[in-house]
This record gives sequence, structure tokens and C-alpha cells, in this order.
Amino acid sequence: MNKTSKRALGLLLAAGFGWGAAASAADTLQDVMQARGLSQQDVLAAAKTYVPTGGRDEFVAFSSGGQSGQIIVYGIPSMRILKYLAVFTPEPWQGYGFDESSRKILDEGKIDGKSIAWGDTHHPAISETDGKYDGQFLFINDKANPRVAVIDLRDFETKQIVVNPIYKSEHGGTFVTPNTDYVIEAAQYAAPLESKKFYPLEQFNEKYRGGVTYWKFNRAEGRIDPAQSFSIELPPYSQDLSDAGKGPSDGWSFTNSFCAERYVGGIEKGRPPYEAGCSAKDTDYLHVINWKHAAELVAAGKAVKINGHNVLSLETAIKEGVLFLVPESKSPHGADVTPDGRFIIVSGKLDTHATVFSFEKIQAAIRAKKFESKDPYGVPVIAMADAMERQVQIGLGPLHTQFDSKPCIAYTSVYVDSQVAKWNYCDGKVLDKLSVQYNIGHLMTMEGDSETPKGHYLVALNKLAIDRFTPVGPLHPQNHQLIDISGDKMQLLYDMPLPLGEPHYAVAIEAKKLKPGVRYKVGTDSRTDKPHPGAVRAGEEKVVRKGNKLEVYGTLIRSHITPETIEAQVGDEVTIYLTNLERAEDETHGFAVSTFNVHASIEPGKTVAVKFKADKEGVYPYYCTEFCSALHLEMQGYLLVKPKGWQPVKATMATQGYTENDYRATVKKVADTQAVIDSVVGYITSVNYKDYPDVVSMVEDATDQLGKMKDAKAKAEAAAGKKDWEQANLWSEQVFQYQVKAADLGLRAKTYLEQHGAHKVAK
Amino acid sequence: MNKTSKRALGLLLAAGFGWGAAASAADTLQDVMQARGLSQQDVLAAAKTYVPTGGRDEFVAFSSGGQSGQIIVYGIPSMRILKYLAVFTPEPWQGYGFDESSRKILDEGKIDGKSIAWGDTHHPAISETDGKYDGQFLFINDKANPRVAVIDLRDFETKQIVVNPIYKSEHGGTFVTPNTDYVIEAAQYAAPLESKKFYPLEQFNEKYRGGVTYWKFNRAEGRIDPAQSFSIELPPYSQDLSDAGKGPSDGWSFTNSFCAERYVGGIEKGRPPYEAGCSAKDTDYLHVINWKHAAELVAAGKAVKINGHNVLSLETAIKEGVLFLVPESKSPHGADVTPDGRFIIVSGKLDTHATVFSFEKIQAAIRAKKFESKDPYGVPVIAMADAMERQVQIGLGPLHTQFDSKPCIAYTSVYVDSQVAKWNYCDGKVLDKLSVQYNIGHLMTMEGDSETPKGHYLVALNKLAIDRFTPVGPLHPQNHQLIDISGDKMQLLYDMPLPLGEPHYAVAIEAKKLKPGVRYKVGTDSRTDKPHPGAVRAGEEKVVRKGNKLEVYGTLIRSHITPETIEAQVGDEVTIYLTNLERAEDETHGFAVSTFNVHASIEPGKTVAVKFKADKEGVYPYYCTEFCSALHLEMQGYLLVKPKGWQPVKATMATQGYTENDYRATVKKVADTQAVIDSVVGYITSVNYKDYPDVVSMVEDATDQLGKMKDAKAKAEAAAGKKDWEQANLWSEQVFQYQVKAADLGLRAKTYLEQHGAHKVAK
Repeated sequence: MNKTSKRALGLLLAAGFGWGAAASAADTLQDVMQARGLSQQDVLAAAKTYVPTGGRDEFVAFSSGGQSGQIIVYGIPSMRILKYLAVFTPEPWQGYGFDESSRKILDEGKIDGKSIAWGDTHHPAISETDGKYDGQFLFINDKANPRVAVIDLRDFETKQIVVNPIYKSEHGGTFVTPNTDYVIEAAQYAAPLESKKFYPLEQFNEKYRGGVTYWKFNRAEGRIDPAQSFSIELPPYSQDLSDAGKGPSDGWSFTNSFCAERYVGGIEKGRPPYEAGCSAKDTDYLHVINWKHAAELVAAGKAVKINGHNVLSLETAIKEGVLFLVPESKSPHGADVTPDGRFIIVSGKLDTHATVFSFEKIQAAIRAKKFESKDPYGVPVIAMADAMERQVQIGLGPLHTQFDSKPCIAYTSVYVDSQVAKWNYCDGKVLDKLSVQYNIGHLMTMEGDSETPKGHYLVALNKLAIDRFTPVGPLHPQNHQLIDISGDKMQLLYDMPLPLGEPHYAVAIEAKKLKPGVRYKVGTDSRTDKPHPGAVRAGEEKVVRKGNKLEVYGTLIRSHITPETIEAQVGDEVTIYLTNLERAEDETHGFAVSTFNVHASIEPGKTVAVKFKADKEGVYPYYCTEFCSALHLEMQGYLLVKPKGWQPVKATMATQGYTENDYRATVKKVADTQAVIDSVVGYITSVNYKDYPDVVSMVEDATDQLGKMKDAKAKAEAAAGKKDWEQANLWSEQVFQYQVKAADLGLRAKTYLEQHGAHKVAK
Repeated sequence: MNKTSKRALGLLLAAGFGWGAAASAADTLQDVMQARGLSQQDVLAAAKTYVPTGGRDEFVAFSSGGQSGQIIVYGIPSMRILKYLAVFTPEPWQGYGFDESSRKILDEGKIDGKSIAWGDTHHPAISETDGKYDGQFLFINDKANPRVAVIDLRDFETKQIVVNPIYKSEHGGTFVTPNTDYVIEAAQYAAPLESKKFYPLEQFNEKYRGGVTYWKFNRAEGRIDPAQSFSIELPPYSQDLSDAGKGPSDGWSFTNSFCAERYVGGIEKGRPPYEAGCSAKDTDYLHVINWKHAAELVAAGKAVKINGHNVLSLETAIKEGVLFLVPESKSPHGADVTPDGRFIIVSGKLDTHATVFSFEKIQAAIRAKKFESKDPYGVPVIAMADAMERQVQIGLGPLHTQFDSKPCIAYTSVYVDSQVAKWNYCDGKVLDKLSVQYNIGHLMTMEGDSETPKGHYLVALNKLAIDRFTPVGPLHPQNHQLIDISGDKMQLLYDMPLPLGEPHYAVAIEAKKLKPGVRYKVGTDSRTDKPHPGAVRAGEEKVVRKGNKLEVYGTLIRSHITPETIEAQVGDEVTIYLTNLERAEDETHGFAVSTFNVHASIEPGKTVAVKFKADKEGVYPYYCTEFCSALHLEMQGYLLVKPKGWQPVKATMATQGYTENDYRATVKKVADTQAVIDSVVGYITSVNYKDYPDVVSMVEDATDQLGKMKDAKAKAEAAAGKKDWEQANLWSEQVFQYQVKAADLGLRAKTYLEQHGAHKVAK
């Protein structure tokens, strides 16, 4: 922010803050400002981004994680990271790649039979209906190992990975067509399309190819359908980012490229490096593709099969009028369709301009067959001047463009200048520039690549942070900067460090459009969305042995695992199915077996299977890894792996020697505790608790806990009847444990009601 | 916060905020408050936590990640996560577990020969000198697979993993002695100490054992020395958290326990679950251990070897006066030594009290041999009353205690009540309570477990978030809440979602004590801190073949990889050594080979090796995965895997057909660009840029980039002399690329100087 706007802001801030004289000098806003060295502008930014406890963010951003292979979910304007979603990289907190179902998802991503334990996620896309974000699904690509993943936003879990059958790398994915019929993924570095096929670099021009893939998305299934998907063979220009047409340009897509020189480096042999040869000419090519027509051609059998996948050859694409090229400023990054679908904006990273291409003009040239030339592969080339609406001087290294809710307003990241430029693509005027820290790559406005951008905020996805944060070693966090774009001038609000991964592109959706669940139907396999064959209900737990295969069907509930002992023989193949019986929000249980590399995360209602070989004798504790309740540490059990031919020792389990007095004391404790619970229940039911959905669900959970007491109490009384004081006392202790869980909920509900102004109601 | 304190705060806030009338109604603080529904209290909290761009946090927290197996680093008061440190779980962004050196660290963590791809990190500890945090090293444990890791805070990298040789799980680690002579790790679920040894649960009391391990830390080496480490055998009570004595109690350590009942559950067999039997009695045992004397006994040869590790047997520990027990309220979690070392505070999770034990009283009882009994293993038990200073009613489910900079002030987390209690352990008065959301586990004050707590802030590490954040599916983030403890009453400032992992304990240090580096000496193996045998300097890159072993010695610099082609035969074992030649801060390069599961992160100066088998023919791009520069996408190369017996085709590399005119045009572009650079340099050198260390380092980097021009220019001119316009033009383009990098830096420096009030200086 320059000095002039800083002064102006000071004046604006000064408006009517008429808080009177202080009762005490301590802890006024001014004191805090002085102590922390904050300007009025800082306080305004703080107030614009702070979300108080329990508040909600307006927007939710999904950011690629780059080489971490994940997706990062954060709230805007608070810039608080809400979740890392495991996509291409195993992640134990989520159990991803550890339980059998999620392992299968990762196995879908094997290439040439090889497991790949990471990904290079670049460009997320939210599913659209009529060109608007619908908040149902999320797609993300892997640049390094050309793959696309599908995430279901009902539970924020990765449901599918598909491997691109013809590329060796990609970049231009994912982008969706306006009704998410297709997910677009374009190649990056050209290579032979045939699997495991070698051609020398001397045959680069003849044998290496690029392409763009259109993955058919089946919304009802929530999965990509590879059999219905296809690709278009493209020349060996390094295809880069894409965008789907919308409105008037629906049915078409646009993919930029770099190194249309088809230069092959080799600095070790005295050839100048790629960076020199790939940026030597003034223009690269924008690929203009009629994907709807291409899909018809594929349906009509005009595709060839490469590695079993439908590919429209370059020849067919040219002959059938599917593919055209337009020169674009060199080394661009992004081909961004305006919200009205009329223009495509492309900027050259080694240029100073953003070029506004007109879809109408491109179509006119195509209709008139007005081409300036053909490329070396026979693709018709439309003259830049014939396709262009205008060119606007933006700054050094313009890169990616996003849009405002206000008509004609665009924002372009300017890499070399480290700036965001606000400009008008209808009249070509540059309206504002803001310096960012540092070297911005992509930028993101709210729903800014949909037909209905939402304005308000922009996030600068900077590639370097350098000095922005408290130092944490040679590997720095990235820096996402939040910018207020609601006024005429952009205002920097917040610097957010990205603590893991290197985001490239991000998308943000109105938070209210997301309606994820908090629990599964009991016994669900969350990765297939179907009932899990290993699910059991309470009381149905069992252990089944089939030869050396040991199958354990278990359950989890605060605060015990059933069974609490698993007896195996060394060499057994053990499968443990676990169902989380909880219905309460956030009552996830984890499961670990010591030293066997076994872990699972089991959210309420979910069933998972973990599988391992009991390949060593010994005693191995298992336990709940998620701090779920007061008795969480006691949510434990033992895996016993017996030697072959083990003969039971003659020993009986030690008893605690509890007496009738112990039992009576526990019964009294239970009665006393019940009195406390009753008083809490008395308070809750005396006020309008039913007006608070969160409290209602706590009360339901507490009632559920108290309901479990009945069975334990019956067991205690039956044992007492037989004067088995040991069992009687312990089952009474179990009654007390259910009371503790109920009291926990009741107290939480009481505090909530008191803090939220609950009032007495007539009984 | 209750209503009274809210009103009081309103008055406090109102102090003297005399900003006058507004020039415009837009964008005043009041408008923002109204639009966003913020109270004055919210604005105060925002101002207390907001850190403006480029600002620094006061404290840096290191939080365990639970079952994610990582450590989370965040700033206080901004609560922005700065970094996830990979410790027990492979993580590709950091290259951890992908390059050979970090793979070796993970391999140190193998148990019984099995790789373990995760951990359950619980309790981090910062190294101490004289009982004060020194910011040099960080330690963390793995509960599931009993291990301890060492992280060097010079580069925030994991340097060592040691496997506990006698446990099957642990919890009470890590805690350091006041000069970090030892790192303490206590067992959790009892099991036979011998490796892979089976005993049935009927022999639990006789054959299952707990223990506490004292890992010897060699500060000069920055590594644990397993040969100098030892353990003490303990009864099969579930040992839990520990703390080292300090000041008067230095030389002793304290470990709490639960399930001193030694109860074995079995709900599937009709036995009440662990949760009932492990909490049935009123007290568990605090273990009081004279570790200094134990170390002397081990040095004197009194230890036995179990699995090759020094273990002081229970018998020896009793006989030699090393081990004592004190009853403690049941199911406690934490044994927290006060900053002055005089008291140990223990709270029972199923109790309402915090108990203040007096070290002096414990010592008096020991000296007087005043024991109330012996436990079943013969360990002397000091009566609770004889060891206790006082007991204080704290609330339902008190758990963990931390300390303030103010004398006698403690904060205890109260799990069931979901509160933080502030109290005085010298007079037993409870001073304040604050509700937190929800079910707080541990809490953390600034340097709050050292001899010199810093006050200011407290973080509540809540186990449930439930409704606090914008929903992200059934698996919720955790909620760390920042609390201002500088005044008499605690004030909630901020809710921070934890997006990955489930923290248990955390530690926070003054940020100024951390002085990590931003670059390595060129050619460093960061995991051994030694020169990497695969390092080469610019110009020394080479490819060495030894049979079917292909060794590539490469370098990375903006924006090319040397070599740009790697030619392999199918079946080759390929090792690629890569040295990042950059000296500039934050100029990390990544490295990926398509579809071979190869990735590395190479920070400035680092050398790494990646290794893989070229087990399939074909053409596989490799590239830099970290967006490092404008020409980042062009930082690429090809791995060519040739079929066996491949005969070269007769083809020559395509040329671009550049002419003399192209060369002359590029030379002109270079001259024009140089004029721009000169003008930027002119500005920079006209002002007091030397007063800005960040700018000085940018100028150095830019000069470095310009220095590289010389060689490229010479090559261009030599080619032009031979009328090889192709090479002449391309090398001139390379000159231009160096200019772009220099211009990037120059412009960044210029903006920085303009924004930071640089002034003209006399030449």
C-alpha cells in the first residue's frame, strides 16, 4: 500500500469510533495497538479477518498442495486451515492408505503396476451446475504422475483416482465443463503416447505428442467413467492450463502451451538449456477445441485406441474441425474464460501484456476458414489479430487471471513485478496495482472462474515467502495473501503461511453451499459409499477363523473396543473389521496395533478393515488413537500372538478381590452421580434447550449414554445376587463410566445454554 | 466469558479511541464491526492476535500431531501454522522418506525389521540448558511404536529415530532433564519386556512390566547415544506422563500411572471392559525415581541387558533406593513439576482435585524410611498424606497443569467441565475459570514447563471441536484456543483449527531464541550434517556407469537441471545426486521423475540422492516441483530408458532455424533489458539499501545472476563468430534469462525500499 492510500485509510478508519473515556487504562484497543505496534490500518484488517469462536467463514477455499499430494481446505476471511485432505499421499491421521478401502483408492493410482506414494497436485476444480459451483464434488490432478482424483464434498474424502493412459506428465487439469459432464486434463511435457515406448529425442517432432483428455463424470455415481472418456492427440507443444467455455462458448475448451518451439535442451552436451530454447520465440499456441463435436466423433467410432483409451488422432481432429490454434504471447500460464463466456484471457509470463481473445472473432475466423497458416502438423492457425479483442499492458510477467462480481473487472497476477493488477477487460484500463510478497503465481477470487464470481476477496498465491514469517529453517512456508477487493482500491488484509505443501491453484466457494455430513449410516464403507461387509452391530461382535486367516469383527464406542483381546497364532493373516457405533458429532475413534504398522481412523458410523500378518510372537497392545473421552487411555486391548504349538499355562486371571463393601460404595457413588446428572437435566429441561440444535444433539447423545447403563446395571445386580462382588463392583463401575460420559455432555450443554442466553420455559 | 466481565471489557475497550469524524462513511471500523457482527471484545481479541504482513510472532509452538506422526509448528499470538515437520511419517513436500538420506532416518525406526509408515506423536520437549529452553533441539515420542525422534532446530529437520528396545507402547515421553543430559520416555500398556516374547494375560502380574527409559543425549553430536542409555523396570501399572525434577528436585523424575489395579478387561468374554476395571480404585501410583543414582548404578555395572539394552531390575531399583511410589488420585494425566522444582502437581481425571506433592516431604519420608506399605512388587509406598502439600478442588476431570511467570500461579485443564482453571498452588485458592470448546486435554503456557515460564498466553488443546468451525465432513479438525493470561481474568482470544493430526501436548518457546539457518553449506547432507559424497559444483556434473548402475551427479539452479537428459538402459539401477547451487533464501528446488515414485526437496546448498530401478522402457520427463522462477515450468529434462540392444536411429536433433537476424534481435532485447536493469540498479544504489539486510541479500543474488551472463554471452559470441546463428541466438536467450532473474530481484528490492522508507544517500 502506498503512502497516499495509507493516509486516506487513516481518515476512513477514524469514522465515529466514539467509545468514551476508559474506566481503567488497562487493555484498551489503543493500548494493544501501541504495545503491538499496530496501525489503524492493521486493526481494520484484523477486524475484517477475525472470526470469533464458533463463527463461520464466508468462503471455503480448496487449494492444491503441490508436491505434498494433498488438498488444503481453508476458511476465508479468517485464513484458518480447516483440513488437509489426503488424495495421492498416504496419511495416517485420516487412515488414508492404511485401511483396506482407502488402500484400494491409492491402488487405483498405480502406474505400470508401481505404487506411487505421492502426487504433485496443481489445479482443483469444484463441480458445476449451469456454470455455477454446486459444492458437490472436487477434482484435482497430479502433474508428476498423470492422474486425476475425485473427492466427494459430502464427507471430504477421496473416492477415486484415475490414471491418464497416454501421458507421462500433465498440468492442465482439472477444469470442468459447465455441467461437469467432463473433467479436462491436458498433458505437459510431450512424450510418446504409447505406454512404455521409447523413441530418442532426435525423433521428438515426429514421435512425441501432447494431448488433452476429457474425463466423463458420472454425477449419480460420483465417479469418473474411464470407458466413456477420450483424448485428443496434440502436437508436442507443452500443453499447459485449460479452461472450459461457458455461455456462448460452451462446448469448446481452451488450452495454452509453452515451448511451441519444440526445443530440446541438453546443457550437459553444450546445447543451451530448455529455459533458453523454450522461450526464444515471441509466441506459443492457444489450442481451441470443439469438445462437444469431439465427443460426438468418439461416439461415432472415429477414435483410435491407444493403451485401450479412446484417442482422436491429430489427423481426425484437423479433418473434422475440432482443433484450431491461435498464437499467444510467449510462455503463458492460464487460459481464462470470462464469466460471460465471451472472452479468453491469456498472459505471457515473459511478456508484459494480457491478451483478450474474442470467442466470437475466433468463431468468425473458423466459419470463414480464415487461417493465417497451418502449423507443422497441419493444424489451422488463426491470426492473433483476427482472434484478439484487445491487448493490455499489465506489468512484467503476467500470469493468471480471475474475475470479480463486478462486470468486466479482472485481476491478473504479475510474477516478476510481484503485483496483482486490477483491470477492465472491456475497455482495457488498468485500475489498480498492489504489491504482494513475493512472486505471485496463481491468484483466486471467490468462485472467480465460474459464471457468477462473488467478489469480496482475492487470494494471492505467492511462490516465495522469504522474510514474511518467523523463520522455520531453509524450507519456507508459502504465503497466501488475502486481499479485500470490495472497494476501488485493493487492500492487503492478511498473510497466511502454508505449512505443508506448495499450492499452485485454488478455488473458493461460498461456505453455505457446502453441506457435508457429520456421521455415516452405521456400517458404511466410506470409499465405496456402500454397506461394509465387515460391519457388525453392538452385541454381534465375533472372531472367525478360517485356516490361518483370522477375521475379527469388532466395534468401537466410548470407551472400549470389543473385543478387548485378540488371540492369534504366529503366521496368521489377521483382518480386523471395526465399526464405530457412535452417532455423536466429532466422536471419531482411531485404532492402532503396536509395531505392526496398523492404523485406522473411524468416524461415527464408518466401518473399516485393517489387515496384517501376525508374523512375530508376542504381546502387542492396541488402542484408540483419538482422544475420545475421559477414559480414552483405557480404550485398549491386547493382540496375543502365540508361538506355534503353544500349551496354555495353568493360571487363572488375577482378581482384584473386591468385596461387598466395595460394591456398596460404588452403588452409592453411582447414586450420588445420578443426583448430579438429574440436577443438570433439571436445569436443561427448565430452559428452552430445544431451540438450540447443538444442545439437542448433546442431550440425545447423553440419553444414549444413560441408556447403556441399563445393561451394565442388570449385570451388576445379577452378579450381586450371586454374591460375585468382583463382577458386581466392576459392572457398577461401568455404570459409573456411562454416567461420566453423560455428565460430560450435560455439563457442556449447560455451559452452552448459559452462554447463549437460554431462558426459563414453563414446564 | 460471563456477562459481567463482558460489560467490564466494554468499558475498558472504550478508552480514548478518539479517532475523529470520517471523511467517508465507507470502511470504518464500526462499519466492519456491524457488517461482520463483531463485538468490541472481538475487535480487541483480533488486535491482540493479528500479525501484520512481515511481522513476527512472539512465541513459536511445537505441537505433537498425534496419529499423523508429525510435529506442527505455529506462531503465537497469530496462531498461524508455520510448518508441519515430518518425523515418523513419510512426507513428499519435504522429500522425507523419498531421498536416500531421509529414508535412512525412517529406517532407523524399523521395529523387528518392519518399516512403520506412521507414528502417534504425543509429547514434544525442547532442549534445556540450566532448566531453561535453549531452542537447539526438539524431541518427540511415538506412542504406538515406542520410539523417540530428535529434531535439530537449526534446520527443523528430523535427524534421528531411536526404537525403545523393551516396550510395546509408551506415552510418557519426551521430557528432558534440566541440561538435556537425558530424554525421558516411560512405557504405557504393560507387556513382556523381552522382544517377541509371548506370555498369556493370566500371567499379567508376573510377566508383564512397565518401565521408564532415560535416553542419553549427546549435545555436541546432536544425537541420542543408545549405548549410554538405560531403563528402569517398573510394575505393570500403565505408566503415563513424566516430568524431570529441577532446582532442588534435579536428579529425580516423576511418572504418573493409571490402572494400578492391573485390571485385564475382556468384554467379549463377559468381563467388564478396561474402562471399568482400570478406574475402580481411588488411587494409582506416582513413581518417584532417583535417575542420577540410577545412572551411577548403571555405570557401575548393576544393570542387566534385555534385548541388548541396560535395564535396572525392579529388585535392584528397590534395593538401591532408586524407586518409590506415592498414591495419587485415580486415572491422572500428568506429573508437573513447578518452576521452582519444589512441588509436583498431579490431577486425577476421574477426580475433582489437583494434588500438590512436596518434593521436600517426599525426601523426608524417604530419609526417615517412613513408608505406609510396599506394593505387590516390594516397592516402598509413601503415604499420600506424608507426601502431599495440599489438595485443591479444581473441577470435574482435571488433567494437566502448566505454570505462569507469576509466582505460584498454575493453570489446570479440566476435561469433563471443559474449562481451564487458574489457581494458586501456594495457597490453594482457585482464581478464575474459563470455559473452552470442548473437552480440553493438555494445555500449554509459554515455556510453561521450564524453570522460567513467560506468561502472556495459554493455549487450550481441546479434544473436540464439534460446532466451532465451518464443517468439513465427519472427521473434524481439533481446536486449539488461545487465551490471554496477562490479566487477572483469562480471556479467550482465538480458535485455531488443527487441519491435520490430533495434537496431545505442545511446547512454546520465545521466537527470538530460535535462530534457524536459511541455507546449507553447498553439498551438505542435511540428515548427517556432513558433506554429501554425491555433491558436485557447477561444471563438475557427470554421469558414471558401473555395470548396470548408473550414477548421475547433477545440479539445480534457476531455471535448469544439469543434466537435462539422462540416458539409461532398461534394468539399470539409477542413482541421481542433486545439489542445489542456490544461495538465495527460499530458493528451494524440487525434483520429480514421472511415474517412478521419485521425489526430492532440495533447499539451498543441500545435496540429496534419489534411487530407483529403470524397470520399464520409455520416455519419462523430470522437472523441478517447486515454482522457483519465471521459467520454472521449463526447468525440465527427460529420462530415456532404452530397450536392451537398442540401435540408435539415424536422425539428428531438429533445429529451430534461427538466423543472424534472430540473433541480432535477441542481442538488442538483451541490451534494452540491461538498460532497465541499470536503471533499477541506479535507484537501489542511490538510496541507503545497505541498511536493509533483506535487500542486501537480494542485491547479492541479483549480482550472482548477472555474473552468470558472462559465460552464456561468451558462448553466444563464439557461436556468432562461427556464424552458428542457432547457438548464438539460443545462448543470447540464456543471457536474457539471467537478466529476467536479476530483474525479478531488482524489482522486488526496489518495491521493498520504496515501501520501507529508503532515502537518498550521497554517492
